[in-house]
Amino acid sequence: MRSIQGCIIGNNSSASEKSLNLAIQTGKLFAKLGIILVCGGKTGIMEASCKGAKSLSGSTVCILPGNSFEEANDYCDIIIPTGIGYARNLSNILSGDFVVAIGGGAGTLCEIAYAWQFNKKIYAFSDINGWSSKLAGQKIDDKHSDCIKEVTSIEELEHCIKEDFNLS
Amino acid sequence: MRSIQGCIIGNNSSASEKSLNLAIQTGKLFAKLGIILVCGGKTGIMEASCKGAKSLSGSTVCILPGNSFEEANDYCDIIIPTGIGYARNLSNILSGDFVVAIGGGAGTLCEIAYAWQFNKKIYAFSDINGWSSKLAGQKIDDKHSDCIKEVTSIEELEHCIKEDFNLS
Amino acid sequence: MRSIQGCIIGNNSSASEKSLNLAIQTGKLFAKLGIILVCGGKTGIMEASCKGAKSLSGSTVCILPGNSFEEANDYCDIIIPTGIGYARNLSNILSGDFVVAIGGGAGTLCEIAYAWQFNKKIYAFSDINGWSSKLAGQKIDDKHSDCIKEVTSIEELEHCIKEDFNLS
Amino acid sequence: MRSIQGCIIGNNSSASEKSLNLAIQTGKLFAKLGIILVCGGKTGIMEASCKGAKSLSGSTVCILPGNSFEEANDYCDIIIPTGIGYARNLSNILSGDFVVAIGGGAGTLCEIAYAWQFNKKIYAFSDINGWSSKLAGQKIDDKHSDCIKEVTSIEELEHCIKEDFNLS
Repeated sequence: MRSIQGCIIGNNSSASEKSLNLAIQTGKLFAKLGIILVCGGKTGIMEASCKGAKSLSGSTVCILPGNSFEEANDYCDIIIPTGIGYARNLSNILSGDFVVAIGGGAGTLCEIAYAWQFNKKIYAFSDINGWSSKLAGQKIDDKHSDCIKEVTSIEELEHCIKEDFNLS
Repeated sequence: MRSIQGCIIGNNSSASEKSLNLAIQTGKLFAKLGIILVCGGKTGIMEASCKGAKSLSGSTVCILPGNSFEEANDYCDIIIPTGIGYARNLSNILSGDFVVAIGGGAGTLCEIAYAWQFNKKIYAFSDINGWSSKLAGQKIDDKHSDCIKEVTSIEELEHCIKEDFNLS
Repeated sequence: MRSIQGCIIGNNSSASEKSLNLAIQTGKLFAKLGIILVCGGKTGIMEASCKGAKSLSGSTVCILPGNSFEEANDYCDIIIPTGIGYARNLSNILSGDFVVAIGGGAGTLCEIAYAWQFNKKIYAFSDINGWSSKLAGQKIDDKHSDCIKEVTSIEELEHCIKEDFNLS
Repeated sequence: MRSIQGCIIGNNSSASEKSLNLAIQTGKLFAKLGIILVCGGKTGIMEASCKGAKSLSGSTVCILPGNSFEEANDYCDIIIPTGIGYARNLSNILSGDFVVAIGGGAGTLCEIAYAWQFNKKIYAFSDINGWSSKLAGQKIDDKHSDCIKEVTSIEELEHCIKEDFNLS
């Protein structure tokens, strides 16, 4: 039985203090629940979430755009240098059983769109700057009946994930 | 001297009559201006724009997700079956000197996000359903100073393209 | 009815005089037969074949690994900057109805392997340095009954293509 | 400090008994040495090597061509459904600090070519059917001074990896 894999997306730079703190807490939550953290492997939200997961001995998988292991942040257990540039956004999203969005600019928006297209459950933090706030509670188009789920706290995220994936 | 290449993006299904008509007109405009039309090669907005371009003997290039030439619509001159699935959204966008968005769902949103990330000029039709309307006149994030340019008619699109690309 | 597309593969550097001359002649042959030339868009064999095609007003399509139009050689009509790095080898091969290999190193070998996997007709020049010579007349594995077809001259290549694609 | 990642490549079908046994033994060796096993995640050599690694509680990472977790074999700890088709061959290779080739057809040949292009150390088993035998001790082109290293037994592979990666 493989473990659940969850993808965390957000800015690689210019993330706010609040967003970075949410990323750390989400990484810790994944570790606590035994969920493998998948992310884009770079700085900002990605690094913060990996750091959080590793602080509780969670597992982290980093899916990079470039050719080299060196591009990864310091908290990556397993590194996938895809070599396909920002087409890696697709691979990143597909590697999550679900997606957590924390703020984010164009890269995050691209990944939310892919997540919707491939019908992944998306949890989006509101009350922060960026695309996760703007799209929380919304639908991207009419393909699916569920909305992007708005979450406002780590406790709410934990509750949702546990319920949706039958974790105790 | 290579010709200018322009990318047209929008729904492959469930496009409105108004959107499809704009796609045909945009294809014709490209043909008139000697702009090579690049698109995702499938149905809906993509097919309509190719059909418009071919009606005036323009050139069309179709960048497909799958492995096979057969996936293309009937108005494709040159077919690129990328074999990389929906990572082809990236290749599609990068193949345009600029992008015209006509309505659109999750796939189009993904492509607009890529276009913004790679600093392409984006012209977005408003007054129709879909993401081109929602993002017309907006910025995706703070990376660039220009907004996505709102266009409301083919005449306005023609004016913008001519001015931005020094066409007479 | 779309035109036939043929893919030419070979070294981007250190190609021999003989190989470069074959590339020019193959480009001219494509132009003469109305075949659209697809290649990787860079220097060496790719540039020489495009130059040959353009000298007879043929059409050339260049499928690049990077993000930028500037990476293409000077004889490209249509430029596809895929943005997916050397994963573009796959897109390049899939865009040909058939493949002509002229010499070549690791990149060409990778493309011959993809061409075999997707059951493309492969014409390989022998009597020159590189992988086209080594694999001419061979099978890559047992998946297909046909061999990679050995060609020793432009006349022989012309004969084979005309016969295989019903051109007169 | 991340762990060393090693990529194992070979046929997904029609692998010989001898090849499959080498794959199991190589998987076990990786587990013993604390090397994370990366592979294409499908059947044949990939499945056998994962099975070997898991029998000694090693870690396995499976990089799939398709969109779905279900495509993976039963011995995958971490699953990366890249969604980019056989362009995933590139991502697979780049995710190894080194590559072990066991037999193989066109797909394996493609991956060996990528490994050479990106200057990965390649260990190729000889005395079995397929491309690893044909290329053992050879150079793909003149870009690198080292040859593909021929190995004839698990003991020899262990010796080489320990020496090249300073493992005790």
